Amino acid sequence: MSEMTTEILEQNLNKIVLVRLKGGKSLRGKLKGFDQHLNLVLEETEDTTAVENQLKLGLIIVRGDNVVLISPPPR
Amino acid sequence: MSEMTTEILEQNLNKIVLVRLKGGKSLRGKLKGFDQHLNLVLEETEDTTAVENQLKLGLIIVRGDNVVLISPPPR
Amino acid sequence: MSEMTTEILEQNLNKIVLVRLKGGKSLRGKLKGFDQHLNLVLEETEDTTAVENQLKLGLIIVRGDNVVLISPPPR
Amino acid sequence: MSEMTTEILEQNLNKIVLVRLKGGKSLRGKLKGFDQHLNLVLEETEDTTAVENQLKLGLIIVRGDNVVLISPPPR
Amino acid sequence: MSEMTTEILEQNLNKIVLVRLKGGKSLRGKLKGFDQHLNLVLEETEDTTAVENQLKLGLIIVRGDNVVLISPPPR
Amino acid sequence: MSEMTTEILEQNLNKIVLVRLKGGKSLRGKLKGFDQHLNLVLEETEDTTAVENQLKLGLIIVRGDNVVLISPPPR
Amino acid sequence: MSEMTTEILEQNLNKIVLVRLKGGKSLRGKLKGFDQHLNLVLEETEDTTAVENQLKLGLIIVRGDNVVLISPPPR
Repeated sequence: MSEMTTEILEQNLNKIVLVRLKGGKSLRGKLKGFDQHLNLVLEETEDTTAVENQLKLGLIIVRGDNVVLISPPPR
Repeated sequence: MSEMTTEILEQNLNKIVLVRLKGGKSLRGKLKGFDQHLNLVLEETEDTTAVENQLKLGLIIVRGDNVVLISPPPR
Repeated sequence: MSEMTTEILEQNLNKIVLVRLKGGKSLRGKLKGFDQHLNLVLEETEDTTAVENQLKLGLIIVRGDNVVLISPPPR
Repeated sequence: MSEMTTEILEQNLNKIVLVRLKGGKSLRGKLKGFDQHLNLVLEETEDTTAVENQLKLGLIIVRGDNVVLISPPPR
Repeated sequence: MSEMTTEILEQNLNKIVLVRLKGGKSLRGKLKGFDQHLNLVLEETEDTTAVENQLKLGLIIVRGDNVVLISPPPR
Repeated sequence: MSEMTTEILEQNLNKIVLVRLKGGKSLRGKLKGFDQHLNLVLEETEDTTAVENQLKLGLIIVRGDNVVLISPPPR
Repeated sequence: MSEMTTEILEQNLNKIVLVRLKGGKSLRGKLKGFDQHLNLVLEETEDTTAVENQLKLGLIIVRGDNVVLISPPPR
C-alpha cells in the first residue's frame, strides 16, 4: 500500500466513506480502522446498493479482498 | 488484520454476529472463534439468506476467504 | 487456522459432517482427515446437493479452497 | 496436504479415480502421479461430464487449482 | 512491476488516466499515487462505464487487484 | 510440479498437445516450452474451441493460471 | 517464467502482439515492456474485441493477472 493511500485513509478516519465491493454492493459508513490489505472497520454503515432500500448494518468488518474502491467525502 | 478488527471480534466472542459470504449467503450465529484469515467458528448458526426459509446449521466452521463482511450486534 | 477450528475438527474425526462448497454443492460424509488449508478426507460421502438425487461418492479428497463451511453434527 | 491425503493418493496410484473440476467437468482416469498442489497425472482419461458423450482424453496433466474433489474407487 | 511501468505511471502523475476494472467498470481520473500492486489513488474521478450517466466519484483509492488496464492520455 | 509432470512435458516438447483453458477455450499446438507454473509456449497453435471455425494463432505464450489440463498426443 | 518466454517477449519488443484477456477482451498493440508476472506495456493499442468497433487505447499498462495468452506476429 502506498504511503499516499495510508495517508488518505488516516485523514479520513471517523469520516464517512463510500466503499464499492466486488459483486456490485455499495456501502457508506464512518471509517474506524483499516490495514494494509484494505480490511476495513466501518461504523454506522448503510448498504446503499439499492437506492430505495438502504439497509442499516451498523458496525462492520469488511474483508479487504472484496474492496474495489474507497471514496472519501469531498473536502 | 488490524488491531481494531481483532479487538472488535474479541469483544463479540459469544455474541450473535451477522456474516455475509461471497455468492450472497447470509449467516447469523454466535461467534466462538476466529483467526487472522477471518476463518470463523460460529455456534447456533442459521442460514438467513432466504427470509422465509431459515435453515439451522448449528456449529460451523467458515473458511475465511468466503467472508465479505462481519457485523456485530448493535451495542 | 485457529486452535478452536483444529479442536472442533479433531473432535469430529470419524463423525458425519456436512460440507458446503463454492458453486453450491453440498456433501455429507465421515471426516477422516484434514489439514490447515481445510483439505478434507471424507468417507462414505454423499453428494446431497439435489434433495431427490443423492449420489454416493464414497471416499473422497476435497481440495480446501472449495470449502465454504463445515458443519459437524449436533451434539 | 495432510499425510492421509498423500497416503490415499499413493494407495490409488495406477487405479481409476474420479476427479471433479471447477466449472462442473468430471474426469475418470488412472492416477499416475500427483504433487502437493493436487496437480495430477491421469492416464486413459475420459471426460465423463456428459453422460452420453464421453470423450477420450488419454494421458493428461491436470493443474491442481482446478480440482474440487478426487474420489478413488470403492475398495 | 517493470521499471517501464513505474516510469510511465510516474510520468503521468497529476495527469488524467483511464482505468478499466474487472467486471467492466471504467474510471477516468487524475493519477495521484500508485504502488507495485497497481493500487491507485485517483482524484476528480468519474465513473465512465455508462456513456450517458457519468458519476462523479472525486478522490478514490482503487484496490490494485481489480485493475485490468491503465491508459495514460495521448502525448 | 511433480517430477512426472516435468518428465511428460519434456517428452512432449516439439509435439502437438491439446490444452484446455478456464472459460472453455481449447488450443492445439506444438509444445515449445513450459515452466513450473505451467506457463506454456506453443507453436503453430490453433484455437479449436469452435469445431467449425478453427483460428490460427501461430506462436503463443499461455499464462499458466488459465490452464485446466494438458493432453499430449496418444503414443 | 521460462527463459523461452522471456526470450520470445524480448524478440518481440517494439513489434505488434495480440493479447487475449480474461473475460474475452482482445488487444493488439506494440510491445514496449513486460515483467515476470506478464504485466505488459503496449503502445498504439487497439481493443479488437468487437470486429466492427475497434477502440484506440494508445499507450496502456496491462495488469498481468488478466492475461490469457500473448501472440507475437508470424515471422
